[in-house]
Amino acid sequence: MMHPVTMRESKRRGRRPAGADTKSALVAAAMEVFTEQGYEGATVRAIAKRAGVDPAMVNHWFGGKDGLFAKAVLQLPIDPEEIIAEVTGGDLDSVGERVVRRFLITWDSNGGGQFAALVRSVASHEMALTGLRELFITKIFKPVTEYAGGDGDPMFRANLVASQLIGLGVIRYVAEFDPMATADIETIVAAVAPTIQRYLTGKIT
Amino acid sequence: MMHPVTMRESKRRGRRPAGADTKSALVAAAMEVFTEQGYEGATVRAIAKRAGVDPAMVNHWFGGKDGLFAKAVLQLPIDPEEIIAEVTGGDLDSVGERVVRRFLITWDSNGGGQFAALVRSVASHEMALTGLRELFITKIFKPVTEYAGGDGDPMFRANLVASQLIGLGVIRYVAEFDPMATADIETIVAAVAPTIQRYLTGKIT
Repeated sequence: MMHPVTMRESKRRGRRPAGADTKSALVAAAMEVFTEQGYEGATVRAIAKRAGVDPAMVNHWFGGKDGLFAKAVLQLPIDPEEIIAEVTGGDLDSVGERVVRRFLITWDSNGGGQFAALVRSVASHEMALTGLRELFITKIFKPVTEYAGGDGDPMFRANLVASQLIGLGVIRYVAEFDPMATADIETIVAAVAPTIQRYLTGKIT
Repeated sequence: MMHPVTMRESKRRGRRPAGADTKSALVAAAMEVFTEQGYEGATVRAIAKRAGVDPAMVNHWFGGKDGLFAKAVLQLPIDPEEIIAEVTGGDLDSVGERVVRRFLITWDSNGGGQFAALVRSVASHEMALTGLRELFITKIFKPVTEYAGGDGDPMFRANLVASQLIGLGVIRYVAEFDPMATADIETIVAAVAPTIQRYLTGKIT
């Protein structure tokens, strides 16, 4: 375990940069603390203390507890802020398309292995589930739903969006049903985007 | 292991009926053979032989290998023929509604526990996955898609229907996201039925 001062000193002596040390110390500590305390119980303060770094470093490197959980523990290839910026930047009439395309490009990127690993992790660990709910629903789907501005409960709309995307991921990456497993992205976007568009902006009652 | 003749004799002596014996012998044998051989490798003949009963009994009691797998091994509360009859019996304009309502009534029936158990089983056993693909896609979704008569590849449409329903099940029964986990059936039917209707009969390209 390293103290930040030590790391800053080690940088001056020309060893590997302090940033990388802080980051990897935080990741190691996060895995331990999330496992011991669960998602809800784990605090940024406890993780930073375990890593021997300033709690502000968690925000600096991972944008907070969610990001640390997503990137370090689940090793997800996503950045909530980047996704929201992309999805909400553009014509509201084509938000469904952007959501589906972003989803497929993200999870296709490594052959779908990370989506399948995530599903298995969720199926066996309550911790992962709580973290995911927080991450996906609160940090991604709900902000996108609010941006879209459909009437009624934004959380119900967020749940609908999540249901279609999660099911799509299960069919394409976990169950690998044909032809969905091998269909090209734009074929799926054409079929599924109107669903997401309606869940975000259309009539759902 | 009992021979059918023995069972028929035992019935005459006033013990429990032969049918129940045959059925439970088949279920026990099926669990063994599916586990040993996997879904593809397991044959009706091998299961019947292990149970010491006539292979015709598999069709009689379970409607074939799929049914035996679904009812005995996965203990699913479904009968593909009954579902297809219900879903295809009625106005084509409301098929989406019937599919979503049947899905929710089926899996709500025991508090969603069986859907969650199924997902966990699929996440950990390749056998369960192959069996499910065969059962759901081939025996249920594809016949329903063909009945609906949308243009293009019926398997792609079947995959789309499956993706929305599986995701809905994951959100409602496994992840238990609010408000989807507690929403009443008709609220969900109103929101999701148009999606299924389009996947079955509408424009998807």
